[in-house]
Parts: sequence; C-alpha cells; structure tokens
Amino acid sequence: MKRIEGGVTAAVGFLAACTAAGIKYKDREDMALVFSRTPCRAAGTFTRNVVKAAPVKWDQKIVRESEYAQAIVVNAGIANACTGKEGFDYCRETARTASAALKIPEEAVLVASTGVIGMQLPIDRIKAGVEAMVPCLSEALEGGTTAARAIMTTDTKKKEAAVQVEISGKTVTVGGMCKGSGMIHPDMCTMLAFVTTDLAISRELLQEALSNDIKDTYNMISVDGDTSTNDTVLLLANGMAGNPEITEKNQDYETFCRALNVVNETLAKKMAGDGEGCTALFEVKVKGAESKEQAVTLSKAVITSNLTKAAIFGHDANWGRILCAMGYSGAQFDPEKVDLFFESEAGRLQIIENGVALPYSEEEAARILSEPEVTAIADVKMGNAEATAWGCDLTFDYVKINADYRS
Amino acid sequence: MKRIEGGVTAAVGFLAACTAAGIKYKDREDMALVFSRTPCRAAGTFTRNVVKAAPVKWDQKIVRESEYAQAIVVNAGIANACTGKEGFDYCRETARTASAALKIPEEAVLVASTGVIGMQLPIDRIKAGVEAMVPCLSEALEGGTTAARAIMTTDTKKKEAAVQVEISGKTVTVGGMCKGSGMIHPDMCTMLAFVTTDLAISRELLQEALSNDIKDTYNMISVDGDTSTNDTVLLLANGMAGNPEITEKNQDYETFCRALNVVNETLAKKMAGDGEGCTALFEVKVKGAESKEQAVTLSKAVITSNLTKAAIFGHDANWGRILCAMGYSGAQFDPEKVDLFFESEAGRLQIIENGVALPYSEEEAARILSEPEVTAIADVKMGNAEATAWGCDLTFDYVKINADYRS
Repeated sequence: MKRIEGGVTAAVGFLAACTAAGIKYKDREDMALVFSRTPCRAAGTFTRNVVKAAPVKWDQKIVRESEYAQAIVVNAGIANACTGKEGFDYCRETARTASAALKIPEEAVLVASTGVIGMQLPIDRIKAGVEAMVPCLSEALEGGTTAARAIMTTDTKKKEAAVQVEISGKTVTVGGMCKGSGMIHPDMCTMLAFVTTDLAISRELLQEALSNDIKDTYNMISVDGDTSTNDTVLLLANGMAGNPEITEKNQDYETFCRALNVVNETLAKKMAGDGEGCTALFEVKVKGAESKEQAVTLSKAVITSNLTKAAIFGHDANWGRILCAMGYSGAQFDPEKVDLFFESEAGRLQIIENGVALPYSEEEAARILSEPEVTAIADVKMGNAEATAWGCDLTFDYVKINADYRS
Repeated sequence: MKRIEGGVTAAVGFLAACTAAGIKYKDREDMALVFSRTPCRAAGTFTRNVVKAAPVKWDQKIVRESEYAQAIVVNAGIANACTGKEGFDYCRETARTASAALKIPEEAVLVASTGVIGMQLPIDRIKAGVEAMVPCLSEALEGGTTAARAIMTTDTKKKEAAVQVEISGKTVTVGGMCKGSGMIHPDMCTMLAFVTTDLAISRELLQEALSNDIKDTYNMISVDGDTSTNDTVLLLANGMAGNPEITEKNQDYETFCRALNVVNETLAKKMAGDGEGCTALFEVKVKGAESKEQAVTLSKAVITSNLTKAAIFGHDANWGRILCAMGYSGAQFDPEKVDLFFESEAGRLQIIENGVALPYSEEEAARILSEPEVTAIADVKMGNAEATAWGCDLTFDYVKINADYRS
C-alpha cells in the first residue's frame, strides 16, 4: 500500500469543483461538487441522531434505493436540519438542478450540508452555485483540494487522504476528504466525509466494508460529545480501475478494506486533531481489555471527559481524571490493576502502576504533554482486546467559537 | 413548610466546627467537623463510579453495618481517591482520632474528602486538624456556615439550605450543606452533601427517603458530565425533635420527604448554579414525555451538551443544539412535534413549534438568556411525564480552572 497525494479526485474518473455561492460565509468558497465520469456503487453511513437533517434523509433513500449514484453536492454554512418539509424539498431541488446540468438522473445525486441548524437554505443561491460549478469540474488533484477547502466550517485545515493498492494486477486508488470540527461525536457526526475509489465492487460489499470500517475510525473520534444531525460518510466506487468486480470476501476485498481503513483513519484523526479551538490531538489506547466493546467504552469515556481534555490543554498529567472517566464509563474493571502511560514525540512515561502513582517527574510529563499529538495508554490487564479513540483538548477557543457561532 | 436560615446546625443537637489544617490550600479553612449530641440514624448515597475514593468505601461500610453514626470529618484539597490500601488506612486513622477526641466509637465516624485525585493525605495534619476542631464545636448557625465554607474547593459560594415542618405536633428541622463545583455529574458526583435532621425515623425509611430523593435532585445536575470518584450524600437523623419515631410510610413520612426534597433540590441547584467558571444556572424542563425515564434522559442530554452550554454562555438562542442533544440522547421522540420555549426573569418566549422555528426576535431571546437563571422548556407531546435537570454554561473560566487545577 502506498500513500499518495490528493483526495476525492485521486481515483480514476472522479472530478471536483467548488464555488463561492454566498450561502452564509462571505468571500470564500462554500459549495463543492464531486462527480464521477461513470455511474458508481454508493455506500453511506449516517447519524443515528433521532433528529436527522434533510440531506441525511435524502441520501439514505438514494443509498438504499438507487441503482447507482454519480454526484455529490455539498454546502457549508447552513445544515438544513430541523427545516421540515421545506428543507427536504430543497434537497430535491438541488438534486434536480445538478441532474439537469450533469445530464444524470435526479436519483443519482447525493447532497450534504453542514453549518447552522434550523435555518432554511437560500435555494436560489444553491441552484446558481450548482450551475456555476458544473463547467469548472476538474480531474486534477487541485480540484479535490479546493473542494476539501470549500466544505470547511470551523475547520482550520482542509482534510484529505489517499492511498493506492494492487488488486488483481490493477492499481486501485482510494481517496477522500472530510470536514469537522465541532458537534463531533460521530455515531455517526457535523462531520462529513466523502471517499471515492475506482475499484469495481458489488454494492453489498461496498456498504459492508464501509459499515465495518467506521466503527474503528469515524465512530472512535469525539471533539465535544455532541452527535450531530448531519453526520454523513459517503463512499463512491466507479469501477474504472478495471479490476474484476469484487463480489465475495476474498483477498482482494481484504486489500481494499485495509486501504479504506488507512484513508478513513487518516481523515478521522485529522478531524479530531483539528477539533474546534484545539491545540492537540489526544489519542487514547486501552489495552488488555476483556472485549473490544469494553476497550471502546473505556477509551471513548476518556476522550470525551471535559476535565481530562482541559488537563491536556494545560499539559497537566492529571491522571486521576483519566482513571475517573474510565470508572464512570459503565465498563467494569479493577482500578487497582491499571497501568497508565503518556507518550508523544517527546518520549514515553509510566505514570501509574496497579492503580497507584509512580514517582514520576512532573516536568518530564509536562514536556511529553506539550507535543501536538499526545497519547495516553491504559492497560487494564484483563485480556487481549484493545481499542484506540481520538479526541482533542478543551480550550478557551472552543468556548469562544461556540458561544457566538451563529453571529 | 418554612424555609429558615442555616445549614447542618439548623436541626436541634447538631454542632459544627472548622479549621485551617493546611491540607493543600494555604491561609484558609479546609477541614470541617459535624457532630450530633446524640447518636444518629445514618443514610448515605455514593458515587457509582467503579473507581471509588477511600472515604466512600469507609462510609459505605459504616452506613451499611454500624448501628448509628455521630460525626462527620471532611477535608478539602485532596480527594483520597486512587490511593490504595494506604488511603483506606488513613480513613481509619482519621476516624480513630475523632473517636478518641469525641468519646464515641470509631464506627460512628463518617469521613469525606474532595480535591485532587491520586495524592495521599498528609495524615498528621488531618489528625491535628480533627483535634483542633473538637473544642470549637458550636451549635450556632454560624458554626454550620463556617463548615460550609471550609469544604469548598473551586466553589465560589458556600451552599446551605434548611426548612422546618410540623410532624406529629413537633417542629422538625432539616438542614444541609454541600460543595461542588467541577467533576459534577452525580450518579452520585466531586459533590459532597451533608444533611442533618432532628427527626426520629427508622434507619430503613431514612435510607429509602434519601435514595428516592436524590433521583430528582443531585442526580439531575451536571456541571461537566464527569462523575466523580468521591460523590457522597450523608443524611443524619438524631431524633431530638421528639416526634414519635417514623416506622412506616404514613403522612409524617411524606411530610419529611417533602422537606428533604426542598433542602436537597435547593442544595443541588446551588451546586449547578456555581459550576466551575459558570455565569448562569441552566434549567431544562422536558414535558409531555411518555415516561419519567424518557424525560430524564432528554433533559440530562441537553444540560450536558457542551455546545448548548457554550451557547448559553454566549446568550445565543441556538435552539438547534438543544434539539440535536435531545436527538442523540437515546430517547425516541418525533422531532417534528417538539415545542421549545426559553424563560427567565426577563420573560418567556416560544422559539420553535412542531420542530420548526417561529419568527421570534433574536434580541428578545438574547435578553431572556442574559439572566443568571435561564430555563429551556421542551414539550415532546407524547404523554404526561416530565423531568427537570440543572446545569450551567460552559465558559472560558471552566477551561482555565481545569487546565491547571493541580498547580
């Protein structure tokens, strides 16, 4: 497997474009269009929030019922959530506009929105935006990169990843883009991720590969514990790599799953590391668990603990908060068996052994915790299962961003 | 029922004292002692965190096994959590010191700690503190008030409440004190609450009254979603009001439960309203629920949502975040039936009707949200159950306090 440059246009046959449609932001691109030269198998995973945004409902229908999909229209600034029947109708109008301009069926157009909840989309500007983007569609990596920038809200960095693998003698590319960076606690999250591949694969296996992979990637990140109304991951496969279509779980399928995992994990970590206002990516590994489920519960409790997150911001080795969060997670374990380590580029330090503090150096701990990527490793010594979750620190800027997000 | 001044010394026969023992804070009182002239029935509810502080384990044993209790020793600054066997031995040493000085059995001494997790108590200073407090025990309301101040950590205000009711012709007083103000998400929370009453009541009914009441009071508040290792509520009843002992659930029992509820709810709201760094008490009422459990789940999801809490800090009527939090709570409801109102001293305003925004005035909403106590009311129109939860806003100061709490 080879990591390569690029994102949604890295795979053969995918084009992208963006435009400044003036949805809510001024003077910046705020719409993106992804298009495949040929029809794609489409898979999707969506928020499990009871309150689902209109585009989520639209896409769920497409992924479930349409034979194929060929385009995705995305806007940033307004989430089109809690917008009733009008909001859903606007999804259809958006798809219809793209359908006419791209000469593809309305049912092949996926839509996604991110931003403020409760406002209606300015549908005329959305439609004008779609029409403006179609002539600009580009196969170049730069096309994907400008699209990745256009879908940002409070993100500070565009997020792309791509890899290449060999499948049955053909080079297959998997690439994607995503955006965070608040209301991030995917179950599925306001995360949106769009992954494209030129692999030929059956629709069922494409969905299964995605559904399995998000459990270890997007569903293991949290910025603030708030599961959005709009969380969407879409995966399009257009078959242009020319491999024999994957229709069973053979070695080719496994190879693709590994490539998909690298792209999704990279995008997920970029989202966590660019959480609203954050200064550090905070990774938590739980080892020695009895079951995967237990390891997931424990690691997610730690990355969502406000107190732990604030301590990470302060470069404070406040390990008691980590043990405390594990303790209220709902998982059972013996606190008096836990070992805990902090690790980063600056080194690795054991802080507690069998539940009690070692005489570690606070200066050394602070040095390790001052890096932009920090890991806590907890060994509960019950079995062999493990899990990794990703979050970020809780900062003044998180509060600032969210105290007046709408203004 | 009559609200009266005072706290733990309001009921007949209860004394309190405090001292500056130098546990961790400098130049302030940091230990408190509560003592009853006569033996008390004792009831307690404790954290359900798997990681339980040593004093929690000590008190659970006393409440379960001792025939009666007569004193409570509290220290602020160090939580005596994650301290292994040594930490538990220190509980016994503390109780033994109080036992000798007060001439009561060791098994009649409850202990409680709050502060940093993982440090050992300076046991010599704790013992000296106990000995210093015994001669200062005072029945005056001021004795209770200084004790309420001594147990504060990041609290900005001391928290007391007391009421009087008539039971079988006797005046019965119920009074208490508590402290917050971070790691507050009681299930039970680092909340500590101590309630005293001169009521005569059986041990079983005292525990039942407390266990039922905390579900609607302490367990309905959250500052940061972190359930502490030390959460403890202790209720002592010394019988000195002279009422016939309550041994069944008669009208006297109901009268006492109502009095207990007023004291506990008042203390719980004070804790939420003085959450770390907060500027407002945030109350969330869910009405029209199918069941109490559903109403509890929905209201707690809203008060623990970081995004909603940051919006309250910004006086921003960002109702989408409230609906979003309800949506990911795990409770089922129809988002398109929800009505939502904001209410405070400054007025009441309906924001959404049947899931969609009304054309309300943002200025009016901001005015209502600028008060120190703000309520959101959500009607899900499914039934008649309701619940109220209390939290606070998420502010710069919360982050500041918790980024360098230990230093």
